[in-house]
Amino acid sequence: MIIMGIDPGIAILGFALISYEGNKFKVIHYGAITTKSDLAMPKRLNCIFSGLTELINEYKPDAFAIEELFFNKNVKTALTVAHARGISILAASISNIPIFEYTPLQVKQAVVGYGRADKKQVQQMVKVLLNLKEVPKPDDVADALAVSICHANSSNFSELFRL
Amino acid sequence: MIIMGIDPGIAILGFALISYEGNKFKVIHYGAITTKSDLAMPKRLNCIFSGLTELINEYKPDAFAIEELFFNKNVKTALTVAHARGISILAASISNIPIFEYTPLQVKQAVVGYGRADKKQVQQMVKVLLNLKEVPKPDDVADALAVSICHANSSNFSELFRL
Repeated sequence: MIIMGIDPGIAILGFALISYEGNKFKVIHYGAITTKSDLAMPKRLNCIFSGLTELINEYKPDAFAIEELFFNKNVKTALTVAHARGISILAASISNIPIFEYTPLQVKQAVVGYGRADKKQVQQMVKVLLNLKEVPKPDDVADALAVSICHANSSNFSELFRL
Repeated sequence: MIIMGIDPGIAILGFALISYEGNKFKVIHYGAITTKSDLAMPKRLNCIFSGLTELINEYKPDAFAIEELFFNKNVKTALTVAHARGISILAASISNIPIFEYTPLQVKQAVVGYGRADKKQVQQMVKVLLNLKEVPKPDDVADALAVSICHANSSNFSELFRL
């Protein structure tokens, strides 16, 4: 199963593509789609949409995982991220990929085993679980990998209980 | 000039298509794209995107006008609307239509001539300016017509000052 994980954003959108077979993770590709702040918002959204569509067409993920967006202290930023999140979900939806949402708590729980883990603990576990030489940078990429792992663990959990 | 105005939303997205030539308005089409609450969010976003793309392809607007999204008391609702707003802007951006954003204050100022006008005053002026028999329903449609009128008035203003 190929899982695509996304950490949405306008300036930096982290993406991850991992495969998960027989309890084993394999990293296929990860990185960030970035757009410059001097580009008009519609163009930035367009870049994100076409970037994601290209990745989806190339790697044909079986599942698409994205974090739920929560109330943020900076509402203006949260509203901007929500624009990019809508676009990301649309790109997966157009390609008929099943879409899964996880809360930050679920992601931390799945990756570290502890819902109140901090960012560094999550990043260290991402590195260990995926057998990476170092913590992927920027943070958005590590977050995209974390949500992919969360989906793998969740689907594993469903498998165990399948009759 | 054909102007497309949008009042974004997930359950109800109001749209308006008006032409504005020589200081005269003509209503071409207006209505709402609606999605049911029992449909998954990705499908709802997909419906909105394809509905808007169809309208854009059919009416080929020269300009796309949408209200800026402000901090709302209900942040959860605002975040959901932001998803639909991102999708709407993307639809116009893909078709290379120039996109214009207006604050609620600018819309009220342009339609009623008074930035603190209430909803009913705006709706009455939309009816009068567009020579409609009654106030269009639901409110989202009237709001979409209002933002189109706002853009017409703003572009008129720019024309006056063009050297």
